[in-house]
Amino acid sequence: MSSDPRFAGINFTPTPASVPPQGARLSRKPLVNVPVNYHPLNPLSFILRAALIYPNKVALVHPNVPSPVVYTFSVWAQRIQNLAYALIKAGIRPGDRVAVIAPNSPLIADAHQGVLAARAVTVPINTRLKHHEVAYILEHSGASLILVDHEYQHLAKDAKVPVVVSNDTGRSGDPYEEFLAQGRAFSQERGWPGLDTDPDENAAAMLCYTSGTTGRPKGVITTLRGSYLGAVANAFEGQINKDSTYLWILPMFHAAGWTYPWANTFAFSTQIGIVNDPQAQKLKRPVVAIIAGAAPTPHLIGELEKTGIKPVHVYGLTSLSFEDFITLIARNPQTYGPFTRCYDQEPWKDLSLEDRARFMARQGHAFATAEEVRVVAVEEGSDVLVDVPADGKTLGEIVTRGNIVMKEYFNDPEATKKAFRGGCFNTGDLAVMYPDGSISVMDRSKDIIISGGENASSLAIEQELASHPHVLEVSVIARNHVKWGERPMAFVILHPQHVSRWKGRHHEFAADLKAHAKGRLPGFACPEWVEVVPELPKTSTGKILKTELRKVVAKL
Amino acid sequence: MSSDPRFAGINFTPTPASVPPQGARLSRKPLVNVPVNYHPLNPLSFILRAALIYPNKVALVHPNVPSPVVYTFSVWAQRIQNLAYALIKAGIRPGDRVAVIAPNSPLIADAHQGVLAARAVTVPINTRLKHHEVAYILEHSGASLILVDHEYQHLAKDAKVPVVVSNDTGRSGDPYEEFLAQGRAFSQERGWPGLDTDPDENAAAMLCYTSGTTGRPKGVITTLRGSYLGAVANAFEGQINKDSTYLWILPMFHAAGWTYPWANTFAFSTQIGIVNDPQAQKLKRPVVAIIAGAAPTPHLIGELEKTGIKPVHVYGLTSLSFEDFITLIARNPQTYGPFTRCYDQEPWKDLSLEDRARFMARQGHAFATAEEVRVVAVEEGSDVLVDVPADGKTLGEIVTRGNIVMKEYFNDPEATKKAFRGGCFNTGDLAVMYPDGSISVMDRSKDIIISGGENASSLAIEQELASHPHVLEVSVIARNHVKWGERPMAFVILHPQHVSRWKGRHHEFAADLKAHAKGRLPGFACPEWVEVVPELPKTSTGKILKTELRKVVAKL
Repeated sequence: MSSDPRFAGINFTPTPASVPPQGARLSRKPLVNVPVNYHPLNPLSFILRAALIYPNKVALVHPNVPSPVVYTFSVWAQRIQNLAYALIKAGIRPGDRVAVIAPNSPLIADAHQGVLAARAVTVPINTRLKHHEVAYILEHSGASLILVDHEYQHLAKDAKVPVVVSNDTGRSGDPYEEFLAQGRAFSQERGWPGLDTDPDENAAAMLCYTSGTTGRPKGVITTLRGSYLGAVANAFEGQINKDSTYLWILPMFHAAGWTYPWANTFAFSTQIGIVNDPQAQKLKRPVVAIIAGAAPTPHLIGELEKTGIKPVHVYGLTSLSFEDFITLIARNPQTYGPFTRCYDQEPWKDLSLEDRARFMARQGHAFATAEEVRVVAVEEGSDVLVDVPADGKTLGEIVTRGNIVMKEYFNDPEATKKAFRGGCFNTGDLAVMYPDGSISVMDRSKDIIISGGENASSLAIEQELASHPHVLEVSVIARNHVKWGERPMAFVILHPQHVSRWKGRHHEFAADLKAHAKGRLPGFACPEWVEVVPELPKTSTGKILKTELRKVVAKL
Repeated sequence: MSSDPRFAGINFTPTPASVPPQGARLSRKPLVNVPVNYHPLNPLSFILRAALIYPNKVALVHPNVPSPVVYTFSVWAQRIQNLAYALIKAGIRPGDRVAVIAPNSPLIADAHQGVLAARAVTVPINTRLKHHEVAYILEHSGASLILVDHEYQHLAKDAKVPVVVSNDTGRSGDPYEEFLAQGRAFSQERGWPGLDTDPDENAAAMLCYTSGTTGRPKGVITTLRGSYLGAVANAFEGQINKDSTYLWILPMFHAAGWTYPWANTFAFSTQIGIVNDPQAQKLKRPVVAIIAGAAPTPHLIGELEKTGIKPVHVYGLTSLSFEDFITLIARNPQTYGPFTRCYDQEPWKDLSLEDRARFMARQGHAFATAEEVRVVAVEEGSDVLVDVPADGKTLGEIVTRGNIVMKEYFNDPEATKKAFRGGCFNTGDLAVMYPDGSISVMDRSKDIIISGGENASSLAIEQELASHPHVLEVSVIARNHVKWGERPMAFVILHPQHVSRWKGRHHEFAADLKAHAKGRLPGFACPEWVEVVPELPKTSTGKILKTELRKVVAKL
């Protein structure tokens, strides 16, 4: 079906159920009694448009697995329709929740579209969670059905609802393929026009759970409208178009893949669902990498640029850069992924790499379809949000509001009320605002170290310590101190090239790093203790678990 | 203020009133009692965002006039705010209409933003209309105030409402500048937060009048939501970004400039408001031209490509192409400009220019944020729309619906009802749909020639006649015929290079053209009469006035 020579070597034929009938109509049942000048925003419309306009263009590729597959937009749309009918046949009704437990693969890519087509709500579950954590989410979400990849079947063990397993083959005989075929048969070729359109653009789209680093994970309900507008903004800001190939590194279960599943169908781009190939070679074309995590150091930016990769950084759990290095804030999943972006300024191009990186590491301004972002004073017990001075110094909490803020925490009005205090979404992230209205994240509120009465940002300390050439990774937390109340303690992983140099002389390295810090940080922010460690405890998404480090420190 | 070296030669300082106060806040008064996860879509938000993020970037340039001006986003946003306050001071209330009569210039660029900021509705008036036509629009729209460029003051003569004249200087002493300064003084530095935000995204944004080729012009009301979504789609489809310079050729009064006034602020691009410079030289960078009008011929495409200009064509009153030649349908102003686009397909690149042009001249599929486009059977007196077969042959009427359809015809429920027959906007354009779901416009319904019981499209005939190398322009209409009922009659302007060749031998040219047609058109569609003319009657927007040709023919 596809004529893309890049994937011609993949030996694959879609199942008969995946092939659409001739002349199939690509729109759902029209709504009645809606104004002529209104259609509810729904990101599902993008795949239907793509299948209409570019039926034979490659939409989804899953290579480098035992059973690789290639789907065109036309075939993929049919599979999505089959999934919708299969879910309806299985008893799924509008508003019901359908859980999906899968790595990046066609199963979860289908779910992000097909569950919407059944007017149900997808609950994407982190595959790195433990069985009891998954069980909690299944229970809390009230999921009526589970779609699970064969490698993660153990996570759905003892589930009290139907489980559909995918062996990730895309071939007949695979139980997931049988499920889709049932959907196709059930539809009796009613096709897309047999499926209802959501009349309410503010209906729930997804139910994504927070990582729950503090307490139980909370379920974030997003809307169709928010998903549509988030996706359009990501396509525009990421300059994705029909000639783009989008390489998935971000797990699609993570904050619903940041609306990229729909940004890609909006832009008609080809999605590839695999990374970490040991045979990966340097690419011949420019590559934009969307990177997530802590603010990258100038050193890292330099190294990435050498490889020809243009990084995009997003603060929060993640990061992003396009033509150049770009920093975003992605508060996942409450803001559908990114809600700020660093917009590069003309004069920066003449700066040194180090100075440029300092500006580029700012989190910037509100995203294309977001409402304004503010930094406000956090007063306990008050509901009034007061903007801090835009002086680049005064710390406050980042708040935002508007179309790309979640609808609510599922079944948790108390948590929703707290999160929406003062009529804004309270991110829990601390930042400063510069005179130009851009912001820099300083820390999560709980990561501030109160040293001698001063607020020291562990993030700011980490950034300075990371500029020491022998530091690979560093994490700083508060440790109690008799005189100062708290003082910073740094946990450091040495750069592999320098491990042997400091072997048996970690106290000397500690002195060296403290001296390095002294020239760059105020006294109260200099680490009192430095510990060299072989690794740092991390969450399933690679975020350093400071809670674990705090447990270590509590015992010291 | 600006550091753009391209405009450094323009000797201009903004008026004191145009300079924003230090640290001015760039958001309007927050709405109360709206959900945290909702903000009403409003294209005014883009200029505020641009002024926040790129305050010193050049937003608007008006060169090559006696008093050239250059405004940065920061200064422009202040002028827009001043205009809003000046209007409010003058008694303008939410929903009131403000007329603007101006060529592309800062006055009308300001109005497209500043009138929205006062929550009023802009009525952009075609400067090429006659006094009595303008008087009709002023009366019908109930405009409470008129902003007029000094060159068009005569069109506002005898107006019964206040008139503000711009001498297009941007300098102190200009009455428009005095008006803005009054607004600044009136605001007493309440600034943007002193202006109300529209709570309803479906509120009226603009009131644009149809050209009224049949009967009185109708007033089209568009919405804030539609304008926002149309602008985002145009920015995305046009690949406009902050490095773009947008050269205005389309008059901004025309269908509110197709939402490009806001597409450009969304994308942070620089707008230049002037063309037709006799000293224009070939540009060194790739240029994309968005062209409007009848379908361009392969010859024209070839000529444009030779000059390095990539044309984009839009059917309707207008046309458009980006990376390559792209055809759109812009039904102005009822669909905010473009609502379809030809999406180029991979296999076309291997075709000959002529074959490629045939595909590229199709009007394609629905635009990025539009709902589906259909071609339906037109039955007199019925409200049921039946899709014609997608066979590339059966003629039907193009209908569409959704967010980028106008809200209504102002004060004309009867015309609105007729236009929205069957729950869709009835464009009055006839087209065929191909098996791939793309459409080609064949004609306006009234331009079909019924020849011997067959429907002949005058547009299709014109396209074939235009392929004769000596034809510069051609227009075909029906002329009564004793035997066949109607037969096509062609009015031709010869190409300047070939005028002398056929001088005194127009009947021979007619025979030559008829022979040319014979090989390309069915007998009933071949012109029975050919008349060579020095010029064709046209509307103010360059559209051939077939009504005038019909008057000529009626006398034959």
